[in-house]
Amino acid sequence: MEYRKLKDQDKDGDTNDEDVESLRGKAISGVSLKPLATLGVGSSDRSKWKRKSIVTLALTILTSSQAILIVWSKRAGKYEYSVTTANFMVETLKCALSLAALARIWRTEGVTEDNRLSTTLNEVIVYPIPAFLYLIKNLLQYYIFAYVNAPGYQILKNLNIISTGVLYRIILKRELSEIQWAAFVLLCAGCTTAQLNSNSDRVLETPVQGWIMAIVMALLSGFAGVYTEAIMKKRPSRNINVQNFWLYIFGMIFNAIAIVIQDFDAVANKGFFHGYSLITTLMILNHALSGIAVSMVMKYADNIVKVYSTSVAMLLTAVVSVFLFGFHLSLAFFLGSTVVSVSVYLHSIGKLRR
Amino acid sequence: MEYRKLKDQDKDGDTNDEDVESLRGKAISGVSLKPLATLGVGSSDRSKWKRKSIVTLALTILTSSQAILIVWSKRAGKYEYSVTTANFMVETLKCALSLAALARIWRTEGVTEDNRLSTTLNEVIVYPIPAFLYLIKNLLQYYIFAYVNAPGYQILKNLNIISTGVLYRIILKRELSEIQWAAFVLLCAGCTTAQLNSNSDRVLETPVQGWIMAIVMALLSGFAGVYTEAIMKKRPSRNINVQNFWLYIFGMIFNAIAIVIQDFDAVANKGFFHGYSLITTLMILNHALSGIAVSMVMKYADNIVKVYSTSVAMLLTAVVSVFLFGFHLSLAFFLGSTVVSVSVYLHSIGKLRR
Repeated sequence: MEYRKLKDQDKDGDTNDEDVESLRGKAISGVSLKPLATLGVGSSDRSKWKRKSIVTLALTILTSSQAILIVWSKRAGKYEYSVTTANFMVETLKCALSLAALARIWRTEGVTEDNRLSTTLNEVIVYPIPAFLYLIKNLLQYYIFAYVNAPGYQILKNLNIISTGVLYRIILKRELSEIQWAAFVLLCAGCTTAQLNSNSDRVLETPVQGWIMAIVMALLSGFAGVYTEAIMKKRPSRNINVQNFWLYIFGMIFNAIAIVIQDFDAVANKGFFHGYSLITTLMILNHALSGIAVSMVMKYADNIVKVYSTSVAMLLTAVVSVFLFGFHLSLAFFLGSTVVSVSVYLHSIGKLRR
Repeated sequence: MEYRKLKDQDKDGDTNDEDVESLRGKAISGVSLKPLATLGVGSSDRSKWKRKSIVTLALTILTSSQAILIVWSKRAGKYEYSVTTANFMVETLKCALSLAALARIWRTEGVTEDNRLSTTLNEVIVYPIPAFLYLIKNLLQYYIFAYVNAPGYQILKNLNIISTGVLYRIILKRELSEIQWAAFVLLCAGCTTAQLNSNSDRVLETPVQGWIMAIVMALLSGFAGVYTEAIMKKRPSRNINVQNFWLYIFGMIFNAIAIVIQDFDAVANKGFFHGYSLITTLMILNHALSGIAVSMVMKYADNIVKVYSTSVAMLLTAVVSVFLFGFHLSLAFFLGSTVVSVSVYLHSIGKLRR
């Protein structure tokens, strides 16, 4: 608990493994924090690694099943539900799930400083930022289609990978080794290659406004991700469900604003749940669970892990679609997957050599 | 000269920089080879590096201009010259150039043990091997087109990259670091990506006979390259022009055999030089010069450098073709070039960390 309190005072949001290392170093040199060395930091490192792997795996599986649900829903016919109401439902469900988890924790552990829901303005003031950034990004999304078609937008979305890496370095001040940077460029190139089709070259004809919007959207998305990580890690001992609760409350508010801006007429005339079906419900459930998995990855791992996880999920989706929907894999997909696999390998060996 | 004699006795064909390092290490530890340390191995390392860079650059430029000449000749109309006679002329020209270079050296330095043309059976017995391997590969090339079309064959030729790396490791027993292996896989994936077009997926439908032939051809080509390197490096002090002379003499013999096998009727009826034009002559000259550059890369660098050099040349050709012939670059080309660039970078940093 000593260590947790110490970390809690660390307010720059930068609580990575290197800090643990340096603390352990001090403990072993026997100057001030000797008790830590006997608290079994080694086994705690292992359990941290285990937790990190589990949440990463969960995110990968949820993200791929999400994409498969989208393919399934498209093949089952067009659905007339409003995307903004679905997003609002996702936030509401995540909020409810966080509260349910909290209620269980309160029953077993009692209410503590770390898991109480009440908060200070100082703590809660940063929580609206990611939701606000996503709102702007989602609004921009409607305008970018004036310059880029949907498959072209899928290709441009890979800019997110680069923006996340750059903002992770600049804002969270985490270092990536030169090999890890090379791996990150490869991840972006590999994902794009895997998505290539005969019409992809059209994206090169994107007008400059389209490029600027794509870059701004990538930056907004990167900012939102990096900001979420900063929030989750600023108070490492704070219960994740409390942090999620506040994050998702603001998600609900901003998505309510989006409903008013974009779909007010449709919702007022046809009703909130118009066009909802079994698949819509499954998709909302899946989005909610992957949203929680993202929060966990942000708290227990980082944005880089998230990007790798969702990229690998994209490839998994394509492979699973071959069996489920009889899709054909292209040569570009094989080449892109090879590059992504090498990227994952380089990222992992790049870490060891730091 | 001491050092050169020492290396000359090294008959396993494995005379890489590590040997120089270990020799220098011995010299510094002051046991037996102390004079070496004062011979200025440092500046010799620099001049070796300079020579290596120049031959690599020459190979890159010659290979790209070669590809540009091919595009030019195709656009100028189909040429009716016989490929086997052109190959024979290339070998003859290389042989003549080697002899001319030797004559100059004999005038300035006199005839020595290292630059005399006369040889022993023991030295010359290995020289026909590369030319023989290329002959078989070129004969196979006519049969593979029963299973794969020409653009598909261009894609499959990238298997050469992998086969060269594997045979370089197995036969020359040189080590590549794990990062360099990753870089090599990326080089292959990147080059293939850069060549993708809307018809590339057809290569996935290649029947198993086509795949086997493509793999056998890649192995033959890899064997020939690795064998040439072994020959050139087996006697490091032997003048390269003598080595080239013997290599190209056997090249002439095997290409003469190829003329008899493949083009005897055409040559007998239409004449040896039928269909030759200015471009044909330029192409022969270019092939001869790049052949000599390949020999130099084999002697002063290695097969890995050769593969990188020719891969980068492939990308350069495409970029130059944009300006010369108004070609359009595809998104796949940009992605492939990015992957190849990262591969070159990783190869170079992979070496430092060995």
